[in-house]
Amino acid sequence: MSFLDHIRACNRWEPANFLPFLVDGERVGLMRRGFAEHLKGFPEVFRVDREQVTWIYPSTGFEDRNRAMDEVVEALVEPGIISHLQGEPYPVTGGSRLQAPMLIDRAAAPFFGVRAFGQHLNGYVRDGSGMKLWIARRSADRRVFPNHLDNLVAGGLPWGIGLRDNLRKECREEAGIAERLADRAVPVGAVTYCRDSERGLKPDVMYCYDLELPTSFEPRCQDGEVQEFFLWPAERVLETVRDSDQFKLNCNLVIIDFLIRHGLIDQDAPDYLDLIQGLRSPLP
Amino acid sequence: MSFLDHIRACNRWEPANFLPFLVDGERVGLMRRGFAEHLKGFPEVFRVDREQVTWIYPSTGFEDRNRAMDEVVEALVEPGIISHLQGEPYPVTGGSRLQAPMLIDRAAAPFFGVRAFGQHLNGYVRDGSGMKLWIARRSADRRVFPNHLDNLVAGGLPWGIGLRDNLRKECREEAGIAERLADRAVPVGAVTYCRDSERGLKPDVMYCYDLELPTSFEPRCQDGEVQEFFLWPAERVLETVRDSDQFKLNCNLVIIDFLIRHGLIDQDAPDYLDLIQGLRSPLP
Repeated sequence: MSFLDHIRACNRWEPANFLPFLVDGERVGLMRRGFAEHLKGFPEVFRVDREQVTWIYPSTGFEDRNRAMDEVVEALVEPGIISHLQGEPYPVTGGSRLQAPMLIDRAAAPFFGVRAFGQHLNGYVRDGSGMKLWIARRSADRRVFPNHLDNLVAGGLPWGIGLRDNLRKECREEAGIAERLADRAVPVGAVTYCRDSERGLKPDVMYCYDLELPTSFEPRCQDGEVQEFFLWPAERVLETVRDSDQFKLNCNLVIIDFLIRHGLIDQDAPDYLDLIQGLRSPLP
Repeated sequence: MSFLDHIRACNRWEPANFLPFLVDGERVGLMRRGFAEHLKGFPEVFRVDREQVTWIYPSTGFEDRNRAMDEVVEALVEPGIISHLQGEPYPVTGGSRLQAPMLIDRAAAPFFGVRAFGQHLNGYVRDGSGMKLWIARRSADRRVFPNHLDNLVAGGLPWGIGLRDNLRKECREEAGIAERLADRAVPVGAVTYCRDSERGLKPDVMYCYDLELPTSFEPRCQDGEVQEFFLWPAERVLETVRDSDQFKLNCNLVIIDFLIRHGLIDQDAPDYLDLIQGLRSPLP
């Protein structure tokens, strides 16, 4: 393993395996040919050609479109083509999350290959002996990456809630961080990647935050998503990311970004430029 | 003007206008067709074809190659094809600066389109009223961008000196920063861009540093390259970068990177993803 291996693992996909998904003439997603076949069952909503899938639902109203999309994904859950729904609306967009012609359930998004957005927070402490990071271990019953290590706070960014408000909510639910403390989190950029996953394509934008915590702080999970927390020296976090698969896949990238910004990865490392560029992969 | 305009201005070049320059079978540069014509005068050193320029000097010794390259660039300075030499050896490399088959004078590098490497340091102060940045104004007699605004410390990274040592040297010469203080500078990443300049192509790697300075610190230029220094509130620096061309072109990018990492550019800005990706342009 190496830092770069994690970045490569998050950026594995073959464009030829995906068909563009167009809404209002704009490409907002990319879907597997096999999945596109299932959409032929909804000829009022999609036109499925050899080269692309086009949204053709007659009404252009936002609510009408959302309802039409909901009906499609619910119909696809029944035969198990889409495994489940999450009940969180995500924007369907090829650009910014604030410009979306329609919404889609979070769990259905990868089947259509639309952009996902999330927030990841590294909580750290400086004491006399250097920098330490708070690390979470995901619960055994999480659907993806059970028992894996995770950032102190991380969560998807549903439609209709602002970045600051969603971060407050995630901080409270995942680590018991009070609003006043959560508001000290510094937005430090974003990490982007695009991965061919089981469910489909995931072009992902992870907004990143650094939060320096008082030495007296102890995280407490409120929503059952985390089984335990550790306060590890930065060096141990670095070695764990570099040498193992213990972290949830995309959390590795958020930590590599943190290590680079805090001068903890040597600028003379032979793959340093590959790392910094690999954390900002162009999204399709 | 906008942040993104500066990034675009640093990333303007047309691949079709350049021929690959190969050493040992690896592309280490890209040169204008017109410049390649001049290299036909050195048939023992270069083979100039329609599609590429190949280094064919018979000896593969590092010193022999450097001598041969020196002779070529000196011969090209005489008729004014290369405007001047700088006396600083730069690595000729298509990858890391530590793996270079030969060297080239810094001023000649863009004619061959080989990678340039530099270091840029943002010096900042936190006092009760928020964050302030130290800004330099370049001397009137600087060859490039005279009188423009600049990072507190910035300089090229010649071959044969390490990152930390060169940073100490630049800190001392450009701003009178003592070694003990310079060593507190945190490496925070790198910004990459590739620009078609007057002299040729400049694929550039700028290693970036943040240095928090005590409020009592006052920079003093030792080498005449800076005419004055200002301590500006971060907001004024942000507005000056966003709304004007007062900064040396590539320094805008280093400051935009700083502003993003310190949460001073809104993550909801419509071009936020373009900014963070534009600061890590893939180098040819």
